[in-house]
Amino acid sequence: MGRICKLELNEKIIETPLLLPVVNVKDEPISCHELQKEFGIKALMTNAYLLRKYFEKEVMNIGVHKFFDFNGIILTDSGAFQLKKFGRIDVSNEEIIEFQKYIKPDIGVILDTPTRNENRREVIKSVRETIKSAKELKKISRGDILWCGPIQGGMFVDLLKKSCEEMTKFNFDIYSVGIPLIYYENYDFEKIIKICLNAKLNLPKSKPLHTFGAGHPIIFSFLVLLGYDIFDSASYVLFAKDNRYMTEYGTKKLEELDYFPCNCKVCASKKPSEVREMMREDRIKFLAMHNLHTCIKEIDTIKQAIRENRLWELCKIRSLSHPNLNRAFRYLLKHSKFFEKFEPIRKRSSIFLFDKEDFSRPEIRRAIKRLKQRIGSNKVPLSLKNYTYPFCQVTGLNPFELHKKKKGDISTIREIADFQFGNGTGKILFPDNVKIIKSEKTGRIRKIFLNGKLIATLRARDGFFALRIEGAKLLKNALKFPNYRVIICNDKKVQQLISEGKNLFAKFVKNCDMKIIPREEVLVVDEDDNLIAVGEAVLNAEEMLEFKRGLAVKVREGII
Amino acid sequence: MGRICKLELNEKIIETPLLLPVVNVKDEPISCHELQKEFGIKALMTNAYLLRKYFEKEVMNIGVHKFFDFNGIILTDSGAFQLKKFGRIDVSNEEIIEFQKYIKPDIGVILDTPTRNENRREVIKSVRETIKSAKELKKISRGDILWCGPIQGGMFVDLLKKSCEEMTKFNFDIYSVGIPLIYYENYDFEKIIKICLNAKLNLPKSKPLHTFGAGHPIIFSFLVLLGYDIFDSASYVLFAKDNRYMTEYGTKKLEELDYFPCNCKVCASKKPSEVREMMREDRIKFLAMHNLHTCIKEIDTIKQAIRENRLWELCKIRSLSHPNLNRAFRYLLKHSKFFEKFEPIRKRSSIFLFDKEDFSRPEIRRAIKRLKQRIGSNKVPLSLKNYTYPFCQVTGLNPFELHKKKKGDISTIREIADFQFGNGTGKILFPDNVKIIKSEKTGRIRKIFLNGKLIATLRARDGFFALRIEGAKLLKNALKFPNYRVIICNDKKVQQLISEGKNLFAKFVKNCDMKIIPREEVLVVDEDDNLIAVGEAVLNAEEMLEFKRGLAVKVREGII
Repeated sequence: MGRICKLELNEKIIETPLLLPVVNVKDEPISCHELQKEFGIKALMTNAYLLRKYFEKEVMNIGVHKFFDFNGIILTDSGAFQLKKFGRIDVSNEEIIEFQKYIKPDIGVILDTPTRNENRREVIKSVRETIKSAKELKKISRGDILWCGPIQGGMFVDLLKKSCEEMTKFNFDIYSVGIPLIYYENYDFEKIIKICLNAKLNLPKSKPLHTFGAGHPIIFSFLVLLGYDIFDSASYVLFAKDNRYMTEYGTKKLEELDYFPCNCKVCASKKPSEVREMMREDRIKFLAMHNLHTCIKEIDTIKQAIRENRLWELCKIRSLSHPNLNRAFRYLLKHSKFFEKFEPIRKRSSIFLFDKEDFSRPEIRRAIKRLKQRIGSNKVPLSLKNYTYPFCQVTGLNPFELHKKKKGDISTIREIADFQFGNGTGKILFPDNVKIIKSEKTGRIRKIFLNGKLIATLRARDGFFALRIEGAKLLKNALKFPNYRVIICNDKKVQQLISEGKNLFAKFVKNCDMKIIPREEVLVVDEDDNLIAVGEAVLNAEEMLEFKRGLAVKVREGII
Repeated sequence: MGRICKLELNEKIIETPLLLPVVNVKDEPISCHELQKEFGIKALMTNAYLLRKYFEKEVMNIGVHKFFDFNGIILTDSGAFQLKKFGRIDVSNEEIIEFQKYIKPDIGVILDTPTRNENRREVIKSVRETIKSAKELKKISRGDILWCGPIQGGMFVDLLKKSCEEMTKFNFDIYSVGIPLIYYENYDFEKIIKICLNAKLNLPKSKPLHTFGAGHPIIFSFLVLLGYDIFDSASYVLFAKDNRYMTEYGTKKLEELDYFPCNCKVCASKKPSEVREMMREDRIKFLAMHNLHTCIKEIDTIKQAIRENRLWELCKIRSLSHPNLNRAFRYLLKHSKFFEKFEPIRKRSSIFLFDKEDFSRPEIRRAIKRLKQRIGSNKVPLSLKNYTYPFCQVTGLNPFELHKKKKGDISTIREIADFQFGNGTGKILFPDNVKIIKSEKTGRIRKIFLNGKLIATLRARDGFFALRIEGAKLLKNALKFPNYRVIICNDKKVQQLISEGKNLFAKFVKNCDMKIIPREEVLVVDEDDNLIAVGEAVLNAEEMLEFKRGLAVKVREGII
């Protein structure tokens, strides 16, 4: 579910996964100017409640951006967490909403009632009161800013679901999932992951997802894997004040460090013993800078892992940071069925499998399921083993049993097509008189022609077929409606453009085969099932129907 | 076996594990001046053969340190690797030895004949010729410099052992283990680890151990775990020239990077797309700098892991970099018996156990063995579970079965003593009339008195007894000679100092119980088994007898 997206707001564009450093309203060790200049920070979070309490007039006079001298994106938290922590409630939801509308951050948060590790009755209350705040926002208008909808419910899955359902009705711009702080304090990662997974599954996929207070790099990769886009970290400073040094595999006390396991700018400049000797203020600044560098590095490491299709592998590495995180990883593997419809159907990179538990990875489970359904066997035929993801790209332990019988070229391509599109499609897509062209260099099957026309290319990277329109016509005959179809809206102009080969945007998708998975070959058709184009799904079915922006299908060839 | 040591030579002191960047004799992207100033490099390696070929006169005139404008430690490789690679042998061993003696690096290497991935006959030749070179060195005198003895034999374990035995006779200052390059090229980590383990077991423990060409951070932690102290890396530049970007978990091609998973100085300054656009020279410098930063960071990460007793955990994390490295890690676990006598008997940190394979870790195997021998049970009694390493410090999966019977305080301390010193010792060390003092805060056993005298403290951290001299007297009665004894040489002056409580240096150790493991409590006695002091072993038995320098026993209390 991990994704790299562009978030556009107030004409500012920012990439997610995104870390918002939390900036305190007074005496921050790292100024906003430094955050922007030294760290390239383009978005930050601060606290509306404390701004109002200490600097109401200043900030109302000049607005929150000028107050912080920061022209990036500012998210103001309502301060509910602080309020609940200290038990003082001296501001109403309306007041804090109006205040935020006035000081104009890019994103505001309504006054929620955070769930802690409480009994059911109290959690019900926190869910209910947060919904009440959302209703109030609806009544008093949103102003010019975007709004986060906080999700409560904690470990009570039914309440969490209820919270997701109810809050979704208010069409918030971003959803922010609350995690009881105590789970972080106790390294109770399995609970955190459980809440985050359940919230993700019950929230709209098209909205950016934020989780409150996940400020430590040890957990970032897991949350991104679960489809979370935005994190905030006050910890980089709070830990620094407590002489704690973050690494992507856990927290160290400054006193126990003889060497810095880091090469960030600040760590390269000093030894731990020298940092221990610093004045308190300088030491806090040093540690806060290191901690923030480490958080940013981990976000970049995660993004690179997404690009390489290696996020599961990265999470597995991070899962060795602590046995509790390892348990959380096993929890994810146990629930990997939820990931199957999000995992691209084919990838370029090899899959590293280290132990039998890795066989539960969604790519592997799904491949075994399709093998049974579409080839009617538990064994992998040579055709797939030689050509097709994931069978040909597994490195390390092998979860697949091999069927070693050699087959001719025509059987090979039909078998691959059966696996890709369903049992029996191979024979229709590739009639007996196809011409198979092989690579001169490698001797491997590359292109399939029929009556002199190219109908499909067998991709060298992943062994799936890329269809041309002539192939798509044949496939359509082999597949009952609505299998592998994306149905576009009844707009002649749009249909014309797509039939000419333009890409299909999500907003023009009327309906689709609900089994479509990202990167599958799909047939673009009109409502009467007339073929318009063939291409590659960028989103899964659910996302195609839900998203209002962005590509749904990268069209390879139109009917014209 | 991982260790942090000080290497002293020519009045320069340097800490190991140590990475020597290899500096080419011509056009290096990073100058020696930069290496020293920007990277804090205090030791480097270069090639005597190429120096002689291209700059013979200059370097003979001014010496190798002035030639490179580098006042740190310089190791000159003989260039045998290059010679063999290109098949030209236009220099003799004597010539290259004399040349090195003349240009005065701190450390030289004789002309060896590297083992490649060859047949047995050729490997025999490489072992023999290297021994012949060593004999020649002995004949023509060593000059003022230290010498590395190269070890050959590769995957032929008997030849490797032979090479170790023969080369050891020449008393080299450093031993350098050769690994066929092809194993690195093929990611054949299991073979590399096998050669390194077998060499380590057959070489003197008191000498620094170097392995040629292990220049990638992916493997450093494994080699340090195996007791290797010095590495050299030409790869940081060679990879850069090939647009390859090192990470501690593998190599990336620059072209496949969208984000830098790193926060070193250079990576923080540019985006991958910008680096791709650089002029070739600048790009090589950029990548070489990043690669070297990454290597140095990994060495620091390893050192910190050693300090935290977490090197096994770090290796396990790194083992997820690639399935082949994972296989090498499993090989180490299968051969963990070789580590048992090096692993400290007690540690401060908890042990993270993630899966059943981790139960083969040497601390766990050894503890289970001792449990059987000394307590006569497979089950862990509550006393040990509550107090003593490793039983009380296991986090994650638990490899131990628990014996839940509660016992009184006196049984508890006797059981712990039996585990620490051997069956039956508890009863003699702690007679019925001992007085047990507990912590007021925690209620846990802290100190044991007998007749008003402190005899032992039960360490809060690890639940082992620290003995006072009165306790040592009792223990001596319980243990037959030479159990738990370190016997010092017959030097009255030394005996006097130690009986006053001074520490015992290895060079004064005459003999000892061959079962002693680092951090065990030991009795320091004279040759007639008269007790002189009690303290904590710093080395294991083999090391105590072999080392000529450094502490053998940290004395807690002398008899006087």
